[in-house]
Amino acid sequence: MEKISVGILGATGMVGQRYIKLLDNHPWFEVTYVAASPRSAGKLYKDAVASRWLIGSDIPQGVANLTVQDANDASLALGKCKFVFSALEMGKEEIKALEEAYAAEGIPVVSNASANRWTDDVPMLIPEINSAHLDIIKKQQAHHGWDKGFIAVKPNCSLQTYMMPLYALIRAGYPVKRMIVTTLQAVSGAGYPGVSSFDMIDNIVPYIGGEEEKTERECLKILGTVSGEKIQNATAPVVSSTCTRVPVIDGHTATVSLEFDLPEDKKPSLEEIERVWTEFSSVPQELKLPSAPDHAIVVRHEENRPQPRRDRETEKGMACVIGRLRKCNVFDVKFVALSHNTKRGAALGGILNAELLKAKGFFDNL
Amino acid sequence: MEKISVGILGATGMVGQRYIKLLDNHPWFEVTYVAASPRSAGKLYKDAVASRWLIGSDIPQGVANLTVQDANDASLALGKCKFVFSALEMGKEEIKALEEAYAAEGIPVVSNASANRWTDDVPMLIPEINSAHLDIIKKQQAHHGWDKGFIAVKPNCSLQTYMMPLYALIRAGYPVKRMIVTTLQAVSGAGYPGVSSFDMIDNIVPYIGGEEEKTERECLKILGTVSGEKIQNATAPVVSSTCTRVPVIDGHTATVSLEFDLPEDKKPSLEEIERVWTEFSSVPQELKLPSAPDHAIVVRHEENRPQPRRDRETEKGMACVIGRLRKCNVFDVKFVALSHNTKRGAALGGILNAELLKAKGFFDNL
Amino acid sequence: MEKISVGILGATGMVGQRYIKLLDNHPWFEVTYVAASPRSAGKLYKDAVASRWLIGSDIPQGVANLTVQDANDASLALGKCKFVFSALEMGKEEIKALEEAYAAEGIPVVSNASANRWTDDVPMLIPEINSAHLDIIKKQQAHHGWDKGFIAVKPNCSLQTYMMPLYALIRAGYPVKRMIVTTLQAVSGAGYPGVSSFDMIDNIVPYIGGEEEKTERECLKILGTVSGEKIQNATAPVVSSTCTRVPVIDGHTATVSLEFDLPEDKKPSLEEIERVWTEFSSVPQELKLPSAPDHAIVVRHEENRPQPRRDRETEKGMACVIGRLRKCNVFDVKFVALSHNTKRGAALGGILNAELLKAKGFFDNL
Amino acid sequence: MEKISVGILGATGMVGQRYIKLLDNHPWFEVTYVAASPRSAGKLYKDAVASRWLIGSDIPQGVANLTVQDANDASLALGKCKFVFSALEMGKEEIKALEEAYAAEGIPVVSNASANRWTDDVPMLIPEINSAHLDIIKKQQAHHGWDKGFIAVKPNCSLQTYMMPLYALIRAGYPVKRMIVTTLQAVSGAGYPGVSSFDMIDNIVPYIGGEEEKTERECLKILGTVSGEKIQNATAPVVSSTCTRVPVIDGHTATVSLEFDLPEDKKPSLEEIERVWTEFSSVPQELKLPSAPDHAIVVRHEENRPQPRRDRETEKGMACVIGRLRKCNVFDVKFVALSHNTKRGAALGGILNAELLKAKGFFDNL
Repeated sequence: MEKISVGILGATGMVGQRYIKLLDNHPWFEVTYVAASPRSAGKLYKDAVASRWLIGSDIPQGVANLTVQDANDASLALGKCKFVFSALEMGKEEIKALEEAYAAEGIPVVSNASANRWTDDVPMLIPEINSAHLDIIKKQQAHHGWDKGFIAVKPNCSLQTYMMPLYALIRAGYPVKRMIVTTLQAVSGAGYPGVSSFDMIDNIVPYIGGEEEKTERECLKILGTVSGEKIQNATAPVVSSTCTRVPVIDGHTATVSLEFDLPEDKKPSLEEIERVWTEFSSVPQELKLPSAPDHAIVVRHEENRPQPRRDRETEKGMACVIGRLRKCNVFDVKFVALSHNTKRGAALGGILNAELLKAKGFFDNL
Repeated sequence: MEKISVGILGATGMVGQRYIKLLDNHPWFEVTYVAASPRSAGKLYKDAVASRWLIGSDIPQGVANLTVQDANDASLALGKCKFVFSALEMGKEEIKALEEAYAAEGIPVVSNASANRWTDDVPMLIPEINSAHLDIIKKQQAHHGWDKGFIAVKPNCSLQTYMMPLYALIRAGYPVKRMIVTTLQAVSGAGYPGVSSFDMIDNIVPYIGGEEEKTERECLKILGTVSGEKIQNATAPVVSSTCTRVPVIDGHTATVSLEFDLPEDKKPSLEEIERVWTEFSSVPQELKLPSAPDHAIVVRHEENRPQPRRDRETEKGMACVIGRLRKCNVFDVKFVALSHNTKRGAALGGILNAELLKAKGFFDNL
Repeated sequence: MEKISVGILGATGMVGQRYIKLLDNHPWFEVTYVAASPRSAGKLYKDAVASRWLIGSDIPQGVANLTVQDANDASLALGKCKFVFSALEMGKEEIKALEEAYAAEGIPVVSNASANRWTDDVPMLIPEINSAHLDIIKKQQAHHGWDKGFIAVKPNCSLQTYMMPLYALIRAGYPVKRMIVTTLQAVSGAGYPGVSSFDMIDNIVPYIGGEEEKTERECLKILGTVSGEKIQNATAPVVSSTCTRVPVIDGHTATVSLEFDLPEDKKPSLEEIERVWTEFSSVPQELKLPSAPDHAIVVRHEENRPQPRRDRETEKGMACVIGRLRKCNVFDVKFVALSHNTKRGAALGGILNAELLKAKGFFDNL
Repeated sequence: MEKISVGILGATGMVGQRYIKLLDNHPWFEVTYVAASPRSAGKLYKDAVASRWLIGSDIPQGVANLTVQDANDASLALGKCKFVFSALEMGKEEIKALEEAYAAEGIPVVSNASANRWTDDVPMLIPEINSAHLDIIKKQQAHHGWDKGFIAVKPNCSLQTYMMPLYALIRAGYPVKRMIVTTLQAVSGAGYPGVSSFDMIDNIVPYIGGEEEKTERECLKILGTVSGEKIQNATAPVVSSTCTRVPVIDGHTATVSLEFDLPEDKKPSLEEIERVWTEFSSVPQELKLPSAPDHAIVVRHEENRPQPRRDRETEKGMACVIGRLRKCNVFDVKFVALSHNTKRGAALGGILNAELLKAKGFFDNL
């Protein structure tokens, strides 16, 4: 199979670098186009990045010698790549306009940015949960008069820590009424240079700007349904979250207490919950998408796990790893969940979205 | 005023060292007696500790040249000190027996250990909250036939992070029905060597053995009342906690969501809660105990505070510092609380207990 | 004694904040004037800094309500303060011009910046070593036609780790021919936000821009002599240094190997070296300057010291703490040295310079 | 090719665990035998290790269900494995005796322990440097009257950081007279629990017991020659080292200054040194040993590299990564070197030794 050529918008930033690293040797996709700010445009990628390469030792060879293009001009990408991953880092309105410009040029945009997460006709995908939201894309194209282009996004990294176990329970017939969550988030989620080392030595910071609101709201869109011309949000569960930053490189941890929306005698036992999670499998597993984990949810039984450094690479960084499942004094159950924020929660999650789109034929006629 | 001579049991351990450091230049107390395991007995304190001195640069001069005694023989302390701080590190049953042996010798024991926390007639003191529990001491003495000796303890460091703000609300007429808490605890709480550095670099550990149970239970004894021969536990609030270890030297942080046991229209506003906390003052403040904070609760308004390294020394490490007070989607309010686990939460909290006992006359006839 | 009013240039930056914190309750000086970039000018200091206050919990009360002035206009400081501490953070040439503008207005400048370190007629002071360099000030004033104003600077924080032990040996008659040094430097030396946390978790960075050159050169000016119109650099020792950044908040550590410029039989023994260091005392000690350490050099004998977190506060953060003095296979001796980079190495070192200037009469007729 | 069955002595410890992890899917070797202390003997490996598994998420499947044997009884290994890796953690004399017991049973011992490093007839191997030392093995067997068994060891992890670049220079005709080295060593080198987190948060420790002596001495044996019945140590270079512990999980960094034993005009230029290093290739590369790096020395040109987290995995963790090659004020050149202490420096280095032994026929008749 010939590989599909892809472009990276915001290629010199930290998230852009991750896409480039993770797409190295990808079975379906090949990076042929890199675009960034006008300042970098015209330089070889390796010179534009220089000593700011952050992901492992070296820039993948196939990309190092590409010439960086100006990301602000969507037309430059025509004929150079079939679709783009957006890792743009600029103002929200600018990103929104620019992603639409690429779509208007007939170039699908698989975005990591938050700009279009709340656009009514843009799907916010976690392929294990809401691949049905792909149905909104034809409406989106119709709204804009786009032919081949469209925009699909992924949610914030923070809530990916617990969305799959939550959804697995709901799908199994155990609706959740409300949840109280505290996250302990890794510094890589803040980009580079991101959080100052002065704040992360002998310290934690109990605040991440905007994160709690995202966590509480995005959940409901992900669990929503396509209804007419838009995605209709779900109304449950109610989530209350506190987001903190801790001195960890990669891997967001969440402590979760949840209450089922069920009469006492219908609530699942701990064994049943574990069964639901362990057996959980969904569309990406059925489609055998290259980046899909074999087990999207992994349950551990050691008393002191999951831990970010030990467990984040589980299933190539694409699993939600759960431990300490136990009764909660106040709600029904509580547990600790972990997921890799820059793999499942960012670039590799975006790649999985693209794989789903490819498998579902959305890249067929580009 | 002549200083009261005090002994330290478990003087060579980390908590013992903290007592010695914090009692250096104390206005009321003076360390004249140090006791540890038979292995250390007979050595000068400075030689017994040697390069294992952990608290700042140097051993206080007055203690460095004391000869370490065998802590297992309570009679050795007679005439050498009026009362002892227990920082013993051994099996629970052994500690219980040994603390009783000192009390039986007529030497009051102000303990940091957990062994006697659940003894019915032993007060578990946070002086701002339950100084009324001192009334149980005469019962305790009667039960044992002790003349002057007695045992008083302090609670676990973890729950001190939020006990004062909780109590302040209850005292102000705002009873709390339930709370969900996640703690991010410092490594000094685990003693020395305690937690391996291999677990605390690029990592957090979402588990601390026994801590969640202590947190959930001790709360109810502290809020209880002296009733006949024992302390009767309170029945509310119900607490559910998840305790995690993070790479911080000192300072436990807690994220707290709580629900009042009040009809909607009687629940306090955020402003009222802040007023209650800011104005909170209690027995140690009235008695002007030397280690009492002027403000037992300090409320901060920066969006990213409290932080352990910046705020743990507030009010000499004896305040509960609160930030991020806001509405909770699920319960009524949520906030972040911080307290210094080795000052308020351990040795200096124990010293404050001793100051309370002194001020209330419990050391008068020794 | 009435306190001398002082101004802080660059008052909102991290070094400026440290001056403000360390001058709180200073016996001789009182901050009455704060100046920063035009962006902050006109705001109350507490509003200009807001949640960017980095040094402990709270802004000292006396400064919080001062109105920030525009640092670019030296004339604004006239009548508001007798002299200024310069903690300016801008281009080298701009700082040089601005410091000269203040001096020209008759306002002495005690600078933390590197801009004037290599100006021939500006003394680069470590008061224990080269208070004799104050003689150059009258030449400096004559060169510029300044009446009361002048500029005095302090050296880079990195070399302060070992300059005092080096000088103590030279003064005792043991000249040093060459030294090989590796530093392990704290992140606070890079300001705020400074080093990214992404670089300081599970990592060290073996490079600090410009630091090695400063370390190797400044040493020679500090050890130089006033000769005619300028300070003549010393010619020995030759220093080779490698500067690394490590995940430590405060406290630079250096490993040092040195060779004496003496025949074998004249070289000092380890005991003699320790004696020289332990007995070292100089001008700030004789003058009893408020910020002077009683012991400028402290020698420790534990095998695993000095350590930054345990030893940096020795003598109020103003001592050089030395440990592991031993024979070197290659040169004569080696040892580990530590000093507090933001106290001795920056703001408190600057304050000590000002105290020396005050004691020597340089602030008398302002 | 059928795989050679191997045993792991000290299989439950941290180094033993690393061997098991790194031998998972090894092309030549297969772990069929695990031995540890009598306390673990008789348990399944997964139960003996339980929640103390430290290396990534999970125990390799093939080993998890092996029954742990008593390592003290060498005869138990007969017929179960052809040779053993020794990762024993006990007293030096006990290890020496036990390793000899296995050899006497006809089971070669490839050891990670330090017990036999200074045994005259035991080779201390870095295959790129001294594969010629294998000649001593037949002498060793003759001395003991062993038929098939023998002992081979690897050196301390600390000096592997710079031994290959040093040797490459010597081999190219540039003998080195002396070196001054400071190491910044990772915590994994201390085993588990190893270094307390209390010592590694906001801190470094400028001391590692015994490490400096090993570093300075082992160098000379490695560079020695087989002479008669023993390995004769080299006499140069003279090394002076200071070893420090820093908060890094894996990867030892060394700063090195060195002086050539050559007249000025014969000393190599920086370009020549880089050429020597970049072109360096030796026996493991020629033999294409499975764990051999393609490039044993990798030179980087970024000003701030090598860094442990970014560069330790270079060439599967088997390369020496060098950066910052530059002139030294005091000696001739200086540079920063990095190697992975638990791969090249421990278990994978041991595996490479075993691969060399296999390729050279030492396992042929077992």
